[in-house]
Amino acid sequence: MVESTFLFIIEILGTLAFGVSGVRLAAKKHFDWFGAYTLGVITAIGGGTVRDVLLDIPVFWMQTWLYLAVTGVSFLIVLAFTKVLTSDSKSLFMFDAVGLTLFVITGIEKTLAIGYPMWVAIIMGMITGSFGSILRDVLLNEEPLFFRKDIYATACLAGGALYWMTAVFGGPVWLQQSLCVLAILVLRWGALRYGWHLPEMKERTR
Amino acid sequence: MVESTFLFIIEILGTLAFGVSGVRLAAKKHFDWFGAYTLGVITAIGGGTVRDVLLDIPVFWMQTWLYLAVTGVSFLIVLAFTKVLTSDSKSLFMFDAVGLTLFVITGIEKTLAIGYPMWVAIIMGMITGSFGSILRDVLLNEEPLFFRKDIYATACLAGGALYWMTAVFGGPVWLQQSLCVLAILVLRWGALRYGWHLPEMKERTR
Amino acid sequence: MVESTFLFIIEILGTLAFGVSGVRLAAKKHFDWFGAYTLGVITAIGGGTVRDVLLDIPVFWMQTWLYLAVTGVSFLIVLAFTKVLTSDSKSLFMFDAVGLTLFVITGIEKTLAIGYPMWVAIIMGMITGSFGSILRDVLLNEEPLFFRKDIYATACLAGGALYWMTAVFGGPVWLQQSLCVLAILVLRWGALRYGWHLPEMKERTR
Repeated sequence: MVESTFLFIIEILGTLAFGVSGVRLAAKKHFDWFGAYTLGVITAIGGGTVRDVLLDIPVFWMQTWLYLAVTGVSFLIVLAFTKVLTSDSKSLFMFDAVGLTLFVITGIEKTLAIGYPMWVAIIMGMITGSFGSILRDVLLNEEPLFFRKDIYATACLAGGALYWMTAVFGGPVWLQQSLCVLAILVLRWGALRYGWHLPEMKERTR
Repeated sequence: MVESTFLFIIEILGTLAFGVSGVRLAAKKHFDWFGAYTLGVITAIGGGTVRDVLLDIPVFWMQTWLYLAVTGVSFLIVLAFTKVLTSDSKSLFMFDAVGLTLFVITGIEKTLAIGYPMWVAIIMGMITGSFGSILRDVLLNEEPLFFRKDIYATACLAGGALYWMTAVFGGPVWLQQSLCVLAILVLRWGALRYGWHLPEMKERTR
Repeated sequence: MVESTFLFIIEILGTLAFGVSGVRLAAKKHFDWFGAYTLGVITAIGGGTVRDVLLDIPVFWMQTWLYLAVTGVSFLIVLAFTKVLTSDSKSLFMFDAVGLTLFVITGIEKTLAIGYPMWVAIIMGMITGSFGSILRDVLLNEEPLFFRKDIYATACLAGGALYWMTAVFGGPVWLQQSLCVLAILVLRWGALRYGWHLPEMKERTR
């Protein structure tokens, strides 16, 4: 009970952070207020929506108005603190990374709960964490960051893989979750601090 | 019975008008005939399709061929009357606005019918009315108009809110529907005639 | 049994070919390895995923890891043989065309199997065959080829129509499938060899 309340709080923080990231980008494109709010919502809940539709379970944000309300707070935060948010990008990064880890764990555990095998769960964790940003970029008419060198989806997969390996070796759930969180945070931090990245596709032919 | 026949006729007119809007934009991009028809179909039925997938109910246009046939008529209309359609944009606007109102009401009532609360229904009304245009713009590789100053989705929400308030104060269904229709028509008309719009997001930081 | 094994082998080959087409385009855009693999996956399984979501049946690639593994092979092939793949575009075209026909037949037969009428099945065949490429182009931030003069979706529909007509005249299933395959191959070949295409939408007005 204590744990699930804790997880819920972090998930709300993740929604808040993802919403802020969507609304901020809308400001760059001079969207109107409602467009900006909508982009924040789609960034924050898009990944989980794709997951729920693929899993054929009730879409999570249609069960409680809380998620839409939290993204409304994201919108107000951007409106009030645009300058601060941009100058202090480190706190924003931490917000986003913590939200990401929680979204991945939520995605994995929801998928396991309805009986799918672990490999599907890991993919759903990755989709929950990163497809909101794909939808955001498509709607902004930009090439999704997802596909570029930033170890974003890859971090989700690595976290999911550690979650799996820990289970294979008989580790308890809290250790699965902790290692998953740790892997994602370390990889995201390394990507931004030291530029860690996967190799790029070469085009040797044209 | 009379009423539901009336609603059905208006819904078909809405599909026709939305289809025309999709096919016309395809002409601007020099799509081939089938591409243009498909874009018309996606504009006309895209919103309702997203709604049905989110609600997990059978997708409406797969239950009768009528919607696809009506969009075929939209295609023929654009093929035959391209010049007239462009010079008389007011009649087209009315078509589109009437279709929009009906799509919103359809979306709201379908959602309430399967037991979701009113706030979900209002969102589904907005999605039914406006997500077809988002899909259209994404496929045209343009930034969706949805997010810009045009009081489109906002008009759908305002209509939905009036629908709700009327119910809260015990108004009958016909009054709910009429006020919803009226709100959307007035807001759309004001947006086009007087440039009514929501505030734009400012970017004070870069 | 022999036949269904044969169909399965061809479907895997189709997945492989579609995956190669997605990964190759990712190389042009300098995606990282994981982004390229993901684009290959979305190209290969996107159409079937849209079909399964619309039909509200379990998503096919979540039932076995085989499809994701096959697209992994597509990725390795592009990594190893980029030069060969580009110089010998004819073999790639045949791969793609054979995969396309099989995807169309799979789409039609899955839809009929759950009780939808033939016109829905033909549309689902077209979606299975061609929506993966729409998703690919949207994610590459390009205008989908789907809408341009290339008789791609049209070939799927023509194949589906022949499948239907053969059934109407009492032809056996193998004849339905063969004529469908033949129609798609001939139309695709004619489009690439002789430039067959549908008329283009004219814009007489701006």
